[in-house]
Amino acid sequence: MPIYKAPVDDVLFLLNDVFRLERYNNLPGFSEASPDIVEAVLTEAAKFCEQVLLPLNRVGDTEGCRRHDDGSVTTPKGFKEAYRQLVEGGWIGISAPAEYGGQGLPTILTTILNELLASANMAFTMYPGLTQGAIAAILTHGSPEQKATFLPNLVAGTWTGTMNLTEPHCGTDLGLLRTKAVPQPDGSYKITGTKIFISSGEHDLADNIVHLVLARIEGAPPGTRGTSLFIVPKFLPGPNGGIGARNGVTCGSIEEKMGIHGNSTCVLNYEGATGWLIGQQNRGLQAMFTMMNEARLHVGVQGLAISEVACQNAVAYAKERLQGRALSGPKFPNQPADPIIVHPDVRRSLMTMKAINEAGRALVVWTALKADIAHRSQDEKERQAADDHMGLLTPVIKGVLTDQGFASAVAAQQIYGGHGYIREHGIEQFVRDARIAMIYEGANGIQALDLVGRKLGRDGGRAIMALFNEVQGFVKENSGDEMKPYVTPLGDALKDLQQATMWFMQNAMAKPDNAGAGAYDYMHLFGLVALGYMWGQMIKAAKEKFAQGDARLNAKLVTGRFFMERLLPETAAHLKRIQSGAASTMELPAEAF
Amino acid sequence: MPIYKAPVDDVLFLLNDVFRLERYNNLPGFSEASPDIVEAVLTEAAKFCEQVLLPLNRVGDTEGCRRHDDGSVTTPKGFKEAYRQLVEGGWIGISAPAEYGGQGLPTILTTILNELLASANMAFTMYPGLTQGAIAAILTHGSPEQKATFLPNLVAGTWTGTMNLTEPHCGTDLGLLRTKAVPQPDGSYKITGTKIFISSGEHDLADNIVHLVLARIEGAPPGTRGTSLFIVPKFLPGPNGGIGARNGVTCGSIEEKMGIHGNSTCVLNYEGATGWLIGQQNRGLQAMFTMMNEARLHVGVQGLAISEVACQNAVAYAKERLQGRALSGPKFPNQPADPIIVHPDVRRSLMTMKAINEAGRALVVWTALKADIAHRSQDEKERQAADDHMGLLTPVIKGVLTDQGFASAVAAQQIYGGHGYIREHGIEQFVRDARIAMIYEGANGIQALDLVGRKLGRDGGRAIMALFNEVQGFVKENSGDEMKPYVTPLGDALKDLQQATMWFMQNAMAKPDNAGAGAYDYMHLFGLVALGYMWGQMIKAAKEKFAQGDARLNAKLVTGRFFMERLLPETAAHLKRIQSGAASTMELPAEAF
Repeated sequence: MPIYKAPVDDVLFLLNDVFRLERYNNLPGFSEASPDIVEAVLTEAAKFCEQVLLPLNRVGDTEGCRRHDDGSVTTPKGFKEAYRQLVEGGWIGISAPAEYGGQGLPTILTTILNELLASANMAFTMYPGLTQGAIAAILTHGSPEQKATFLPNLVAGTWTGTMNLTEPHCGTDLGLLRTKAVPQPDGSYKITGTKIFISSGEHDLADNIVHLVLARIEGAPPGTRGTSLFIVPKFLPGPNGGIGARNGVTCGSIEEKMGIHGNSTCVLNYEGATGWLIGQQNRGLQAMFTMMNEARLHVGVQGLAISEVACQNAVAYAKERLQGRALSGPKFPNQPADPIIVHPDVRRSLMTMKAINEAGRALVVWTALKADIAHRSQDEKERQAADDHMGLLTPVIKGVLTDQGFASAVAAQQIYGGHGYIREHGIEQFVRDARIAMIYEGANGIQALDLVGRKLGRDGGRAIMALFNEVQGFVKENSGDEMKPYVTPLGDALKDLQQATMWFMQNAMAKPDNAGAGAYDYMHLFGLVALGYMWGQMIKAAKEKFAQGDARLNAKLVTGRFFMERLLPETAAHLKRIQSGAASTMELPAEAF
Repeated sequence: MPIYKAPVDDVLFLLNDVFRLERYNNLPGFSEASPDIVEAVLTEAAKFCEQVLLPLNRVGDTEGCRRHDDGSVTTPKGFKEAYRQLVEGGWIGISAPAEYGGQGLPTILTTILNELLASANMAFTMYPGLTQGAIAAILTHGSPEQKATFLPNLVAGTWTGTMNLTEPHCGTDLGLLRTKAVPQPDGSYKITGTKIFISSGEHDLADNIVHLVLARIEGAPPGTRGTSLFIVPKFLPGPNGGIGARNGVTCGSIEEKMGIHGNSTCVLNYEGATGWLIGQQNRGLQAMFTMMNEARLHVGVQGLAISEVACQNAVAYAKERLQGRALSGPKFPNQPADPIIVHPDVRRSLMTMKAINEAGRALVVWTALKADIAHRSQDEKERQAADDHMGLLTPVIKGVLTDQGFASAVAAQQIYGGHGYIREHGIEQFVRDARIAMIYEGANGIQALDLVGRKLGRDGGRAIMALFNEVQGFVKENSGDEMKPYVTPLGDALKDLQQATMWFMQNAMAKPDNAGAGAYDYMHLFGLVALGYMWGQMIKAAKEKFAQGDARLNAKLVTGRFFMERLLPETAAHLKRIQSGAASTMELPAEAF
């Protein structure tokens, strides 16, 4: 049975000491998020995750969701009660506007909460997780009436949300979608088509499910320029926030999957279901992107979350499992063998996870803070810079943290040896669950293309130049002896990233395949620099906060050094691969494979 | 439903053109293995794998093995009939000595056959696979009587074999094992204890199961120097090669696992079971190692096998799935989208698998040939050199090819997007099945330690020096313009490996943790050099065999170049990590995790 202890102390260190949340007290909601309030919120959330959600993680995996003949879906035993507690705790709306029943606290708290929830139970967390995306989309694009109708229930959690993009023949390439929307005299639309892979598509946790559905209005132009977004609830809204008639959308089947069995992944059949256009006609993709950026950040957080819980379990096992002797001589001569944490190769794995997790969490917190600034600041320039940051970092967080999350789950499983391959310890579930995060909300290869093909060049490279300047500035300011062991490798890595960026500028315009063939390496090179910068920031803050000789300071210094020595050097290999170009990748004709 | 086509042509190219099998016609069995015989054998095997075993792969995964109340185990539907065909085809004994009913062909054929079988159905292949190990152990360490009693049935396949090492509290550290052996007046022993994770431990495929069991003779010294190996059959041998009374070993349960559900992984309870010592008292580990080296090579081959079949399926999907347009402009303007094989990031994955698989297969064939030379040559020096090679390369093949096999399965799954995460396409099964190969027969971290801690220094470094000389010689001999693009990077990578080896010599004696912390990187650095050398050999052979302009020559040249440009540069990062030493890896106290 896996263990989990929410990393509240680490989060507080990031909020209070590294990113100094109190600097943003002028933003709406931030002054309410004082250090003691934040600590109280996180401590309460930690309890819920550790005591209620964690024990249900295995149940969800074993039992899965069941679809009945009438199309209704039963979630695993205990999910309903846990969801009730989540709703009663007001957790879903902590960052939502007060006018719709939320608490108006910074969004950064919801992002942090998502990590805790997903560590304890990723499949469960997807039910409220998708609601967050629906709230964001309706807040941004909904009419006042749509907001009034849907937001209070979504914010409360009595209704949940979904995203409906994928169809059998169309995933990444949404221009191919066929679901139809026929205008009705009353201004609504009749939606008809089949959507697949719909997470939380049907379940018994909430009174209603609000589907946000991409479809093509009759006569719309082909391709992505002809897609519109619709709100299609399972039950039509009734009076006083209640529900009315059943709408024409049903769950045709539940997918059998590799993992996240606790979440119902549905085929949804729309048969003339009533829907309402949200946002502008034929601009559905733009509206969906609001939801998708939210979702992508959340999925990156899932990677971090699984990495954290997998690491915690591997550490516990490594301290307890007795096998072999330390290479430097027995550490526990009175026991039959030493705990395997004495072995350097086991340590190598644990330190890798630790170094990635702590920096990954910092990267998430940093970016979530920018999300708040982008939405709440009064200063346009500040908002723009924050928005630039989010656009640039979202694909990196999604792609890199989910790749690393899966790698951590695999590494943690490896530490268990054969015991990690059998189901009993629950560690192999982390591997199966973590795997999806690399795929959904845009496969990681798509994140890499988004980064290289769209985000780098946008606005004349304004976002990437700002980031280069910031990291370069940090390296320069901290070039004294004390920080040198950390900023010198960071500076070298930054140079690799700059060179790679230059290489694309010089070689990808004329031959776009050069960008495509190097995109994945670039994303990971970027991720390493970003994580390295986070280590720089954390070490600086730790030196200021903790006294010399404090174990917490020592842990940060050692883990940061490990990152610089062991993980960051990979940037050179990424650069070399990027610079090799697309020739050998693209040369073979398809039939030669 | 996955597809599979056995890579017979590629194998024949390796046997006939790269390693030129005809040079070894002086070895017993080799003159019988003429090119046309080999081709006929492989073509027949391919048919069996593609038509009989492949369709059962999914069945095995879905149905799994069932244990009944009486302890008997039923294998998935169709396995029994397929196993009957395997036995009737004489496949298990193709390389076994004729005096025990085998065909005496080179062992290299069995190794190649194992790849084909495991690609089609890894879980099934483990039943005959473990029999190969039992045959090897009994051939090397058994008494004439034991050979006569057990080998004919094992070679025929009417009996199968198992390896019994692991106990609940002891996996890697076999010195901790508790299973007891009490001597009996008739020279036999009574074996009592519990063994776990026993692959093919109980099933309905064969008349009898021959367990090779590590146990401690009453009064034996503690630790590994007190373990002995025993033959403990499920049924005692009866007259005329038949079976007698049921022995005191029963299947207590079947493990629920992440994958390889078609294989029964058993808890075996020994309750005073009759066993016979094989090999010397208290030298059980040495005897077991005969079996284990065989098994490790086989497990490395499993990694290759899954990598191959995963790649084949990903290629087929990438040619068929229409999504998006080529960056360089539409390739199939009349279709709604281009097949995803046009996208550089998809290609990058496919080329990586292809480059690894073709070189991995060469590495396996090269090493299997050395196994034959080590066992069959009349020349002692040649035997010794071949044995050195095997000792050195076995952990590399096991560790690197299984890591790569898993990585390929994951990469192939990624190409399917969401369709790879659902069970329907069968691709996620490859990920779950491939995962075990990194763990069993010595987790890959143990392989790395075996390589660095035992194989490097053995006999004054004779094996590694011979390999360095060979690769260096190849680089020198082929430094002309034509081979330069391939041997220059290989030479650089070799230098990295030599530097890493030197670094261990200078830094690991005084501080063994420096070896432990760098071992995993060293294993992969070694693997890259070995695979790079294979590419050098293959390209040279391809240039000699195929005419200019031949598509097969072009494919080898491009894939080899891809390997040199994209995969080999990783050696520098491995070296850098090794040279960073153990300090940051080992410094934190256990409680700091």
